[in-house]
Amino acid sequence: MKITTIEWKNNKIKFIDQTKLPQKLEYIYIDKLNDLWQAIKMLKVRGAPALGAAAALGVYLGIKDVKAKDFNAFIRALDKAARYIAGSRPTARNLFWGLERARRVAQKNKDKSLLTLKKLILKEARKIIAEDRLNCRRLAGYGSKLIRDKDTILTICNAGILATIDYGTALGVIYRAKEEGKGIKVFACETRPLLQGSRLSAWELKKRGIDVTVICDNMAASLMQQGKINKVIAGADRIAANGDTANKIGTYSLAVLSKYHNIPFYIAAPASTFDFNVQSGKDIPIEERNSREVSELLFRKRVAPAGVKVFNPAFDVTPHNLISAIITDKGVILQPYRENIKRTLGQVLRKR
Amino acid sequence: MKITTIEWKNNKIKFIDQTKLPQKLEYIYIDKLNDLWQAIKMLKVRGAPALGAAAALGVYLGIKDVKAKDFNAFIRALDKAARYIAGSRPTARNLFWGLERARRVAQKNKDKSLLTLKKLILKEARKIIAEDRLNCRRLAGYGSKLIRDKDTILTICNAGILATIDYGTALGVIYRAKEEGKGIKVFACETRPLLQGSRLSAWELKKRGIDVTVICDNMAASLMQQGKINKVIAGADRIAANGDTANKIGTYSLAVLSKYHNIPFYIAAPASTFDFNVQSGKDIPIEERNSREVSELLFRKRVAPAGVKVFNPAFDVTPHNLISAIITDKGVILQPYRENIKRTLGQVLRKR
Repeated sequence: MKITTIEWKNNKIKFIDQTKLPQKLEYIYIDKLNDLWQAIKMLKVRGAPALGAAAALGVYLGIKDVKAKDFNAFIRALDKAARYIAGSRPTARNLFWGLERARRVAQKNKDKSLLTLKKLILKEARKIIAEDRLNCRRLAGYGSKLIRDKDTILTICNAGILATIDYGTALGVIYRAKEEGKGIKVFACETRPLLQGSRLSAWELKKRGIDVTVICDNMAASLMQQGKINKVIAGADRIAANGDTANKIGTYSLAVLSKYHNIPFYIAAPASTFDFNVQSGKDIPIEERNSREVSELLFRKRVAPAGVKVFNPAFDVTPHNLISAIITDKGVILQPYRENIKRTLGQVLRKR
Repeated sequence: MKITTIEWKNNKIKFIDQTKLPQKLEYIYIDKLNDLWQAIKMLKVRGAPALGAAAALGVYLGIKDVKAKDFNAFIRALDKAARYIAGSRPTARNLFWGLERARRVAQKNKDKSLLTLKKLILKEARKIIAEDRLNCRRLAGYGSKLIRDKDTILTICNAGILATIDYGTALGVIYRAKEEGKGIKVFACETRPLLQGSRLSAWELKKRGIDVTVICDNMAASLMQQGKINKVIAGADRIAANGDTANKIGTYSLAVLSKYHNIPFYIAAPASTFDFNVQSGKDIPIEERNSREVSELLFRKRVAPAGVKVFNPAFDVTPHNLISAIITDKGVILQPYRENIKRTLGQVLRKR
């Protein structure tokens, strides 16, 4: 099974409509910026690394038909498109990183022709895609060293193929461990409200032949109590300079429960998820989403009484002290994080 | 609003169909034992104290038309009915307690006529109902002393009106605190998979004018991290002699999270929920339910991929060391539990 979550094809962004899974594997082709904005907002495309690619491709959609008479007019059009995309979802660092990469290419080539500028931006977006394929595999190579034969791993949300281009971060580590011949069992937290765990992770883990069992989020502690979980691995949407990590709501809960039960708790994310402008987790913006995601099941059947208040944060922040290690494409980072993140990702930092 | 969850009316068991809430407040009338068995299994009637009443009324349904020629034939019929009801759900202590109370009345009156025996069993079942009304209010009176003005209380599942006759245990404490003029805010965990929190607790709390906000179960830790929860109160399905408490899956998770965040974690349950024949939580049978409760949303829309494994325990066990106090109708019990449970409930124990 060869699945590519997002790519540039026939002059359009082609991606899997993740709201249709697991019932249907359906692709969407988009060539209008506001369609992309909607697709990101509705989580048709999601997952921090995939959003980085979507954002850069989105910039290209936003400028490909622009008839700017000079570079200033061009960069104004680019910034307008970037600001528009940036307004779709606030938490994932990679989305902004994708926008920044597209802009930097333009700035570096301000003396080039309009046609060349456009080509270079598309090239950069496709480079992000190529890099992600490679980086996920590098990350998985580092991460799988932490995994032993017969481990039972708990995960949350989807940090797999569907969150990246074609391999995954947290789930990439599991795929790599399996490729190395290790017997791995996975418990996938269903991940309310939008059930990325039961809909997406269970789907791709099953397709890749991994022994996966779905649980409700509130069952994780009970499994840990019974000694059935050896490791927890989650992805990340944004990692602060001190290691504090924003990820899908429920991640912090698993981190505390792991600490209590003495289970290693790992975060897996590429360098592009780190935000050196954010010193700690308290400065990471947390998206709050539509209450209907909670009060109605997938917007279909009402469950909570009409008019009842709902609190629906999409993410939470796990303080660095609860994280056993951060698995990146540059290596595994251990505490103390502020120093070791700088050391391991220093080169990435300088590149910006 | 005066709601009675379960009662004996017009020669039938009348109860609210809790699978229809919050959309419809609909009553069911049952006069056949196998209909009652189905209703309990399908959670149309649920909640440990309500199940105690249902079980005793069920024994009456099972024997009311029996034409036994002597007491032995009568008690055989009674035991057959009781065994049948006992097979519906294994965890809640009150269900078995209700069956035992009905049987004990028969044993004590073995010399009475068949007609009198039947009348006495119905009388006992109605006595259980009358006692529950009183006991919930007593429990709430003790529990509300632990609640302060402006407390924000987190709860899970439904331990309210709908889990008892008409007042509740964990939610009864909140109702009483409000009656005393205390300003209380409640966060209700939706309680996957069957959403008793968002469907039932949110419904009755809202009806009683309590400020309630629904969250997904995986959001509780984040609220605690932000200092937004002062107290956690949960009900119980069975409490062992040492204080270990089986309750809705997810309760143990909240207990660990409360410990980590230094938040008092209370269990609220009547004396009838204690099981002195069970020395610790590891001996409490935990019901595992249909995987479709998890893999399909309320049995309607498939979410997990077809054929994926699901683990669906209905309850978990919270070890006594994580429980700050157990609120009962005989008083608030503190650690050390084995001694203090005996002391507080001693009279109840001897009665058996």
